[in-house]
Amino acid sequence: MKLALAQINPIVGDLEGNTRKIIENIDRAKAAAADLVIFPELAVTGYPPDDLLLKPQFIDDNLTRLKTIAASAKGIAVYLGFVDRQGRKLYNAAAFIIDGKIKTVYRKINLPNYAVFDEKRYFSEGKVPAIVGFRGTKIGFLICEDLWVDSGPYLAEARLGAKIIININASPYHRGKAREREKLVKARAKRTGAHVVYVNMVGGQDELVFDGGSMVASPRGKLIAAAGQYCEELLLVDLAEEAVAPPWQDDEEEIYGALLLGVKDYVRKNGFSDAVIGLSGGIDSALTLAIAVDALGKERVHAVFMPSDYTARRSYDDAKEVAGRLGVKMDVLPIKEPLKRMLGELRPLFKGEAENLAEENLQARIRGNYLMALSNKFGWLVLTTGNKSEMSTGYCTLYGDMAGGYAALKDVPKTLVYRLVDWRNAEREVIPGSIIDRPPTAELKPNQRDQDTLPEYELLDRIVDEYVEKNRSIDEIIKLGLPRETVIKVVRMIDRAEYKRRQAPPGPRITARAFGKDWRLPITNHYKEKVK
Amino acid sequence: MKLALAQINPIVGDLEGNTRKIIENIDRAKAAAADLVIFPELAVTGYPPDDLLLKPQFIDDNLTRLKTIAASAKGIAVYLGFVDRQGRKLYNAAAFIIDGKIKTVYRKINLPNYAVFDEKRYFSEGKVPAIVGFRGTKIGFLICEDLWVDSGPYLAEARLGAKIIININASPYHRGKAREREKLVKARAKRTGAHVVYVNMVGGQDELVFDGGSMVASPRGKLIAAAGQYCEELLLVDLAEEAVAPPWQDDEEEIYGALLLGVKDYVRKNGFSDAVIGLSGGIDSALTLAIAVDALGKERVHAVFMPSDYTARRSYDDAKEVAGRLGVKMDVLPIKEPLKRMLGELRPLFKGEAENLAEENLQARIRGNYLMALSNKFGWLVLTTGNKSEMSTGYCTLYGDMAGGYAALKDVPKTLVYRLVDWRNAEREVIPGSIIDRPPTAELKPNQRDQDTLPEYELLDRIVDEYVEKNRSIDEIIKLGLPRETVIKVVRMIDRAEYKRRQAPPGPRITARAFGKDWRLPITNHYKEKVK
Repeated sequence: MKLALAQINPIVGDLEGNTRKIIENIDRAKAAAADLVIFPELAVTGYPPDDLLLKPQFIDDNLTRLKTIAASAKGIAVYLGFVDRQGRKLYNAAAFIIDGKIKTVYRKINLPNYAVFDEKRYFSEGKVPAIVGFRGTKIGFLICEDLWVDSGPYLAEARLGAKIIININASPYHRGKAREREKLVKARAKRTGAHVVYVNMVGGQDELVFDGGSMVASPRGKLIAAAGQYCEELLLVDLAEEAVAPPWQDDEEEIYGALLLGVKDYVRKNGFSDAVIGLSGGIDSALTLAIAVDALGKERVHAVFMPSDYTARRSYDDAKEVAGRLGVKMDVLPIKEPLKRMLGELRPLFKGEAENLAEENLQARIRGNYLMALSNKFGWLVLTTGNKSEMSTGYCTLYGDMAGGYAALKDVPKTLVYRLVDWRNAEREVIPGSIIDRPPTAELKPNQRDQDTLPEYELLDRIVDEYVEKNRSIDEIIKLGLPRETVIKVVRMIDRAEYKRRQAPPGPRITARAFGKDWRLPITNHYKEKVK
Repeated sequence: MKLALAQINPIVGDLEGNTRKIIENIDRAKAAAADLVIFPELAVTGYPPDDLLLKPQFIDDNLTRLKTIAASAKGIAVYLGFVDRQGRKLYNAAAFIIDGKIKTVYRKINLPNYAVFDEKRYFSEGKVPAIVGFRGTKIGFLICEDLWVDSGPYLAEARLGAKIIININASPYHRGKAREREKLVKARAKRTGAHVVYVNMVGGQDELVFDGGSMVASPRGKLIAAAGQYCEELLLVDLAEEAVAPPWQDDEEEIYGALLLGVKDYVRKNGFSDAVIGLSGGIDSALTLAIAVDALGKERVHAVFMPSDYTARRSYDDAKEVAGRLGVKMDVLPIKEPLKRMLGELRPLFKGEAENLAEENLQARIRGNYLMALSNKFGWLVLTTGNKSEMSTGYCTLYGDMAGGYAALKDVPKTLVYRLVDWRNAEREVIPGSIIDRPPTAELKPNQRDQDTLPEYELLDRIVDEYVEKNRSIDEIIKLGLPRETVIKVVRMIDRAEYKRRQAPPGPRITARAFGKDWRLPITNHYKEKVK
């Protein structure tokens, strides 16, 4: 049997565009003599449609599209995801279509409702496994989570004689996810003695990045076909094929790919053509610029440098250098005069008060104003440049450096910023050594350094990883050998910064727990862990 | 039997403070010779604890507190909500304690996972109704949703002989909710032939306001006791009592009360002492000022007026007047000079471009900067002044008038703003007629009026209500007799403004569907309803 794995990049809500893309892929699969073409979970609507699912009209429209797709699929079989409805209940479902007719509809049995997933908000659970005989072989059908759950319906389907088990997915990326999936798919194939076909979506959707990496494992648990990451692909697979090597990218390359696709698709799918970035001469904005240029092309990326009295000459030189190396024009917009005027107006009210955060944040906010003015004037998307270490501790200015539409490094801790820069520099040094070597500074007051306020980034990022991503308690983190006072201080900073995160732009998720759908803490929150 | 309904205002995560408050109320109930004192759902943790529930340490700490509470409850019975755990499963649970011993634990059977609720993210479902004999009477236990579900466990409990059914709640306010609850409680009492005791929480928690209104209905379906709205209360009820009149407030009064408590508790629970408001001379900021003064007292409220060249003299006079009538000092911070400087710096980049939103938004953003500078300097909370009509259509400036910690009118449509002002003015006119009579304007360009961009507010708010709150399709709204082109235009505006709402501060929910937990639309979203 010849299968076509259609790893497509749908757009949430674009029923017309997604349908067109699906039909094109059906036609291509047919032309390639495939027996069966397979599309991702909720391919018709895109994933996750969120509260669009509460609109009856949206469900109607998606059902109409399914009919159009089915009718177009003459002379081939299709398995694809859509939203099914029965009475008032909705199902995360998939249709198996043979020669233009819907032969069976499978309804997802296991609905994830944790981390970034809210499927129980919308869907009812399917109850029955599905098996269909096709060209002399029994095929079992699944959707995403159904394959992960230990005693999932794949077991029943194998018992009923399925020799091919097809699982369609909208599985978002985080570090190492492709390898986790490969392990699972191979294990399930071995356990069931069936070919397991895993089709994933690709593309960026707000904070989620679907990385693709569709694959097929043989009944012996060998990988026999795999699609690339971050690309659309129609992967043709003959089930008799030999084992292949897993094509997954390495850590930095894979993460960089996720950031790239996140930025690219946010820009494209939201109808922007260009992006603008405030360059500070620091490493975060330099990396953001590189990502933007790689995602959009240098002609569509704009840079501004916004110096104050505290800005070192070196900052200008470094910013100019990185812009130059990436082929981006850099404009200069000084903040000195507006800052002076605003502080002048505020003087009577500030009388007798010492300088504090107010003066620092005002500088960042004037920069935010400039960037948004450019955005409003030219329709450019503002890419913010803050990293996860800052987003965790609140070491960032609301409406200042946080102002913008998409935060490329929101889920990238500072230490990983350095590693990504090294990786990006490997072939050709685009980010100058001078930027990499310089101690991080916000330059909001004289001789300021990040480490005046924050612990060393190696330590900080370790604590963020343990507390945020691994969800450990303070006591547990201290037991790992990390310094007690620093752990407590950092955790308190993280807890207190919730109000800032609530107003932050989205950014691509690359860890197992990003600040977004999988981090839902109250702002009003008096919980203080007891520390032994 | 004498019951004490402890309608308390816990703080999410404040296990120590909540425990203290619970024990104080137990002692007061005992002193008043009550047999049984009843606390709200999740009284120990506050509601909703959100992802705090994912912290094992938090669950441990809550269980420790439960023991402390139980031990303190000698000589009285207590029913109260906490988080129970068995193995790796969590339960939204309540303990029935008699004379210091936990007699039984009831686990919520029906877990709401719609609108603002996400209980299936955290909790497993209880399976069994609970009945306990106490002082010769059988008592049945419930938690919140269990009473609402048509074939809920109250039926089984009544069949098992329960003569008192106790339901504890964390039921958030929206317009008319108290009356809905009363209807339900009476109907359930009649249906079961039992006394139904309904205990609700009170207090603001980010976007949710719990309005209290605890009550008891007799087996004949009469209301025999009711606590006030928006206040803590220990309501003592003798089950032999006569019918009472429902004490619920009228629409405007009730809504105003919710806004007041929302603001008051956000300020208090987040450790602020004072709030600052930008007065424009318009009706939204005037109402916000009145709410703030009523919530915090005039000494703790600060007003600034931030004129530009487009600001009419009348705006100043009106702002000054309302501040004066409310006893608030108003400072003036002109934006002219900083605006001039910023536009001056931007001139080379803007060369050849027509004026557009960029110049307008910049003015709003300089105002946002001023307010945040005052916040950073003095630790004041910035209250934003935008209303739901603006938040719906995106007629507001991100990082400009949207900049702040809490948005008092976020869920209040403009037409309701007027009604609330009339209500607030009834006893004494605090908001001058001149403000009420003036056509709304953002004053961001010469002779600007809201209605240059938006349809009349009566029509706009009707469309917002139908589309947002009632979740109707465009076709359905047009069928109601509303003008086709305007409906389509407004719906498109609402859809497009999602990115702004995602970065907006929280504000109190007063309608059945606010922009917050119960509005989860993707930013990247190409769905366009087919219109007939």
